[in-house]
Amino acid sequence: MKLPAHLRSTLTGIEYPFERLEEFADSGESLEVVLPGIENARPRPGSRIWDRFAEFMPFEEAHPELSLGEGSTPLVDAGPALKGFTGLENLLLKNETANPTWSFKDRGSIACSIMAVERGERITATISTGNMGQSMAAYGARAGLEVIVFLPAFAPREKVLSMAVHGATVVRVACADYADMKMSVLGLASSLGLRIVSGNGPIRVEGYKMEAFEIFEAMGGELPDFIVVPTSACGHVRGIFKGFRELRAAGLVSRLPRMVIAQAAANSPIASAIRMGSREIVPFRDFTTIAEALTSGRPPGGEEILDKALEFGWLAEDATEEEILEAQALYARSGFFVEPGTATTLPALRKLTASGAIQPQSRVVVMLTGSGMKDIEVLGRQEMKILDCDQDDLEWKIGTFISKTHPHRGGMAVN
Amino acid sequence: MKLPAHLRSTLTGIEYPFERLEEFADSGESLEVVLPGIENARPRPGSRIWDRFAEFMPFEEAHPELSLGEGSTPLVDAGPALKGFTGLENLLLKNETANPTWSFKDRGSIACSIMAVERGERITATISTGNMGQSMAAYGARAGLEVIVFLPAFAPREKVLSMAVHGATVVRVACADYADMKMSVLGLASSLGLRIVSGNGPIRVEGYKMEAFEIFEAMGGELPDFIVVPTSACGHVRGIFKGFRELRAAGLVSRLPRMVIAQAAANSPIASAIRMGSREIVPFRDFTTIAEALTSGRPPGGEEILDKALEFGWLAEDATEEEILEAQALYARSGFFVEPGTATTLPALRKLTASGAIQPQSRVVVMLTGSGMKDIEVLGRQEMKILDCDQDDLEWKIGTFISKTHPHRGGMAVN
Repeated sequence: MKLPAHLRSTLTGIEYPFERLEEFADSGESLEVVLPGIENARPRPGSRIWDRFAEFMPFEEAHPELSLGEGSTPLVDAGPALKGFTGLENLLLKNETANPTWSFKDRGSIACSIMAVERGERITATISTGNMGQSMAAYGARAGLEVIVFLPAFAPREKVLSMAVHGATVVRVACADYADMKMSVLGLASSLGLRIVSGNGPIRVEGYKMEAFEIFEAMGGELPDFIVVPTSACGHVRGIFKGFRELRAAGLVSRLPRMVIAQAAANSPIASAIRMGSREIVPFRDFTTIAEALTSGRPPGGEEILDKALEFGWLAEDATEEEILEAQALYARSGFFVEPGTATTLPALRKLTASGAIQPQSRVVVMLTGSGMKDIEVLGRQEMKILDCDQDDLEWKIGTFISKTHPHRGGMAVN
Repeated sequence: MKLPAHLRSTLTGIEYPFERLEEFADSGESLEVVLPGIENARPRPGSRIWDRFAEFMPFEEAHPELSLGEGSTPLVDAGPALKGFTGLENLLLKNETANPTWSFKDRGSIACSIMAVERGERITATISTGNMGQSMAAYGARAGLEVIVFLPAFAPREKVLSMAVHGATVVRVACADYADMKMSVLGLASSLGLRIVSGNGPIRVEGYKMEAFEIFEAMGGELPDFIVVPTSACGHVRGIFKGFRELRAAGLVSRLPRMVIAQAAANSPIASAIRMGSREIVPFRDFTTIAEALTSGRPPGGEEILDKALEFGWLAEDATEEEILEAQALYARSGFFVEPGTATTLPALRKLTASGAIQPQSRVVVMLTGSGMKDIEVLGRQEMKILDCDQDDLEWKIGTFISKTHPHRGGMAVN
């Protein structure tokens, strides 16, 4: 790490040397990396985003040998259907599913890999049923780290396999409750001698800053008015915002975008609090939701988000299970097959434009956080056009189908 | 389309107006787009690869509104394990799984979308059990096209769902044999009034050229000596090579990389022929292979590939089912979770370096064509580290595991 790198509590403002990171592991107090001299940081030439923004990072080196090629994801126009649904004229999608393990988590994982290698660590662990476990397994494999992923015994087999294929040790813990199991593992971490990487850790936050830098570059120095982030642990939204704050500290932008938290109504500890104007998160327990990527019912670091919401005018909304399913289909019918957690963003935006909290002409960027490919079973609930047909019936059945759906077509080209 | 855009038979060299495309749909004669004035084409500034290489493309416009953000995929160092396995010192991976539907097919699909929109078509179809169907479904949704995907009734449910979610009509055809069913659908295409998009079509080939342009850019104008392409239909390998030929025609490079065809031993119509020095492909029927993305047993356009292999010194090798499984695990243990079809590349390379056909210091780029997430079932055959554990046993079991695997560790950090 570059020296002097300090950590600062986002609640108290007190600074600590980096080595005291461990003491705050399970305290609910979010830490962030302090970067002295950030006001003099400048982007420099380079083909990788990590090279161009190296002066904004706490690491000594960019360590390309640890990279799987994460980042530089597309920022694309959402298209007419999603603009119509949300009532927004300027809607852009930042497609984080185009990452090496197909979720935004890869940006945090490369940062964790760099830290582990720079500190000479050999083993790392995480608690995850999904994107985080797969991402850490892949980046750990790349860095030659031993990775242990803890998950509840009821996690679907395909999730277990897609982590274990990278050589990670996957520990299936028989437990009644995911939250309980998390607490047991965290409680044992020290005696087990394990660093448990969490979704809210200050090093992962440094990785997520790259999304801000890429949006800044792709928009030619313009800024979005709002950035919509499906939120479970708070690291992702913290990271994107920290990136923009540092761009402002360096004098590269003069204002900040406002963040919008999207959650599932069944588990909306942050959205509920923000809507109520509360400074304490509303804990959720024993919930079920198809938005499996959004599992934090009592997110550590949630209080910081509530403080920031008040200070910076952040918004929050949620989506019911039915709304999530509908939104997943809407995304897919515009070309984007996202996971249910990501689909919370469309209903949330629609409500916020309907209430006037977001204006129709506001520039809005939505983070597409994870791929729908990782949870195919939920698609069983979608209405789909699937026809069964014998080889002999093909001409008649398909001919009839086409003449019904496209009655005015003439003979057509073949290739 | 730009005028005059012509098509040329790659077998006879005869040129045809574009409108005669349809006549060659099922002839086995590959067509390619002729670009008059290519020797004066120059890259120009732009943030999208399609903008920078617009002068190398047959389209009037780049149509960003049809794009899902495909391309600009990472080119990364393969890492020590894969270099060790293949015996290559300079091994790079072009990760096409970082595309909007997580395979290289998206590059062909955007080209097909542009053509359909420029020609005023409203409906398009394909025959596919996997990447092609998903990609066409997504790009068709984006472009507002009606998409029909034909697949055999025995195709796995998750493949059907991941196409149909985009709003495509998926037709499951009861049939004894996939090849037979393909012939029926192709035979009916004209009377059904459908354009059946194939993996070897000249328009898709134009999309795949972008991979050559990206490799050229990323290597700073240097060229790889070899590019390894897992090959089923021939469009992909044709497209990459056509891109390099056009860079040479424009005077931007002075030589051409050699292509390496990787196939599954169980279905190696091209690799078998190239190894035998034959000018006719060796047809395969009634095969089974875990490399499900490589289904062409008698690829249309295969003869062109055999001609090119002789003319340009292309190489070919195959991989047994066991070698494919081993290679998929090796890729994953270096961080890259690829589909079995992609995994044919490592054993193929290892054999070619062992035989001296490829030198250890040659610069080699491997195309990672598709994501492993689309075929999780095959992972059941991999050896994995999965531990089952009660919440109460956690400290003892994991402590024992860690002290065995990392005997010299002291107490460790937690975060």
